[in-house]
Amino acid sequence: MSTRHVWRLARRPAGLIVADDFRFGSEPIPELSEGQFLLRVRYLSLDPAQRVFIDDREQFLPPVELGAPMRGLVVGIVEKSNKEGVVEGTVLSGAGEWADYIVSDGTGLTELPSFPGLSLAATFGTFSLVGPTAYFGLLDITRPQPGETLVVSAAAGGVGQIVGQLGKLKGCRVIGIAGGPEKCTFVTEQLGFDACIDYKSVNVGEALDHLAPEGVDIYFEQVGGPIRNAVMERMKMFGRVSLCGIISEYNVADTDTQPSFWWTIMMRRLTIRGFIFDDYQARFPEAVENLAGWMQSGQLTTRQDTRQGLENAVSSLQDLYSGRNFGKLLLEVTP
Amino acid sequence: MSTRHVWRLARRPAGLIVADDFRFGSEPIPELSEGQFLLRVRYLSLDPAQRVFIDDREQFLPPVELGAPMRGLVVGIVEKSNKEGVVEGTVLSGAGEWADYIVSDGTGLTELPSFPGLSLAATFGTFSLVGPTAYFGLLDITRPQPGETLVVSAAAGGVGQIVGQLGKLKGCRVIGIAGGPEKCTFVTEQLGFDACIDYKSVNVGEALDHLAPEGVDIYFEQVGGPIRNAVMERMKMFGRVSLCGIISEYNVADTDTQPSFWWTIMMRRLTIRGFIFDDYQARFPEAVENLAGWMQSGQLTTRQDTRQGLENAVSSLQDLYSGRNFGKLLLEVTP
Repeated sequence: MSTRHVWRLARRPAGLIVADDFRFGSEPIPELSEGQFLLRVRYLSLDPAQRVFIDDREQFLPPVELGAPMRGLVVGIVEKSNKEGVVEGTVLSGAGEWADYIVSDGTGLTELPSFPGLSLAATFGTFSLVGPTAYFGLLDITRPQPGETLVVSAAAGGVGQIVGQLGKLKGCRVIGIAGGPEKCTFVTEQLGFDACIDYKSVNVGEALDHLAPEGVDIYFEQVGGPIRNAVMERMKMFGRVSLCGIISEYNVADTDTQPSFWWTIMMRRLTIRGFIFDDYQARFPEAVENLAGWMQSGQLTTRQDTRQGLENAVSSLQDLYSGRNFGKLLLEVTP
Repeated sequence: MSTRHVWRLARRPAGLIVADDFRFGSEPIPELSEGQFLLRVRYLSLDPAQRVFIDDREQFLPPVELGAPMRGLVVGIVEKSNKEGVVEGTVLSGAGEWADYIVSDGTGLTELPSFPGLSLAATFGTFSLVGPTAYFGLLDITRPQPGETLVVSAAAGGVGQIVGQLGKLKGCRVIGIAGGPEKCTFVTEQLGFDACIDYKSVNVGEALDHLAPEGVDIYFEQVGGPIRNAVMERMKMFGRVSLCGIISEYNVADTDTQPSFWWTIMMRRLTIRGFIFDDYQARFPEAVENLAGWMQSGQLTTRQDTRQGLENAVSSLQDLYSGRNFGKLLLEVTP
């Protein structure tokens, strides 16, 4: 345990990420100073925003610097501690690196609660990012009402699957949009969505006209591009759009080539609101408590897509942008 | 009083309206049926949305039909009544036509309250449309907080002048955007805005960088185009945009050629919300009471730009789209 493995940013990518954008290597683990501890990373969370972190465009955190360890949320176990109040064996999660061992003073890390019946992967995978994102991004940003029609893009992804189920819990009619019959069957049959549009095989607009002839009250937006355009054209009066992500634009330089819909927003009195889960940090306990309760009672299912081995971080992240993940993407870094 | 004058829609305009898009004529006033009354129109309100009413694009009311009287808000005096409860001499305002006399059953019309010290033009000009628009569009849609920076486009127009003054009443720093030194001097010296950008003589973005180096919390949007783009680029984290109008796009067919700012909305957690004053009809008394109080106490100034004669309706309306109005545009139809 004298060396660690870590991915560092080698250059700013152009377009889709490739292996050479990062550098994988090993390096000595420094001695712990007073107030530091050594975290062994169990899981690394792979999320769409990580593509944004390595660009120098506008974003919600400073970009990862060239040569710096790649940023990501982690959960790990304290193996050695020189910090008062942090005991060995404690499970901590939060801001971390693409590494198997991290020397930390605790900044950005908090204790991950454990819940009977929920695995570490499900707990970390759900509560670290996608759960609060879905919880606040749907419930707080759009305030869904019973009987309303909710459309969720990236429906089989980490956030989408939870958003749709929360919509059902709130009495909405939920239509997912996902790529491929397997994902669509999953969200309708396993997660209870009312319908799912396979954007790879049908025209999204026509499918919406059929499934929601009166239009869409709430759109949970994660993708951008033609899917967003199709839904925007079908928003109902006083509709709400929760702008959570634009994954189709993370790999392109000019993001502003899509229709703006200012006219539609005005005439239909729509509300478009951007948010980032971190804005709600003070209310995370509320989200975790409610989500865990629904998971434990079987009302909420969360699917993880867990890959193995830190060396596969880049290839796993690539899968996010081609839709080859199926559920919340995690990397099991150490056993 | 056996004939009336009326403007009818002759054809759907292409681009800027011209005189031939309308037909001015006189016609016999029909006998009043039971339940009808004759309203003599005192003032006609001329508003940007009237250009939209005569297009067949998406809008919030059905478009005015070809050959039908042109639609507009009016205030008038009941001259003759066959309707129980409506007595001669009553002052009514609401949905009407571009005409000097209107036979009505009262649909869409309500009694206009009168306030000591306020003229009929000021009362009708303020409370019929621009006052509630400014009141709800600023206070409800954006919830301004003391110390926030509010930018108001079309600042010397009917809505803008009230929005800026309400912003000052709420403790905001208010920056207007208007065309020409006369209008800018008016909003800073007469209305108390903190600053005004003359978009005809300076670059709006550069002026904002100077006047609001930390960015814009609230944007009251009425114009679209490059002015909107300049403000959107300078929105602060958690900023709000009240989307009230897009006057630069009312005369063009394709309205969706402007940047969309989806990325900015997401990364800065902005809220963009469209509204129309009519959505708040149930709360009009609240707006009227508060606005009248501020006007009577001298805390709110409203400037009308009153033109004379029904025959000048089209040329007056044209002035709205070239910025040649100065204050709320009204037409005095009969003395």
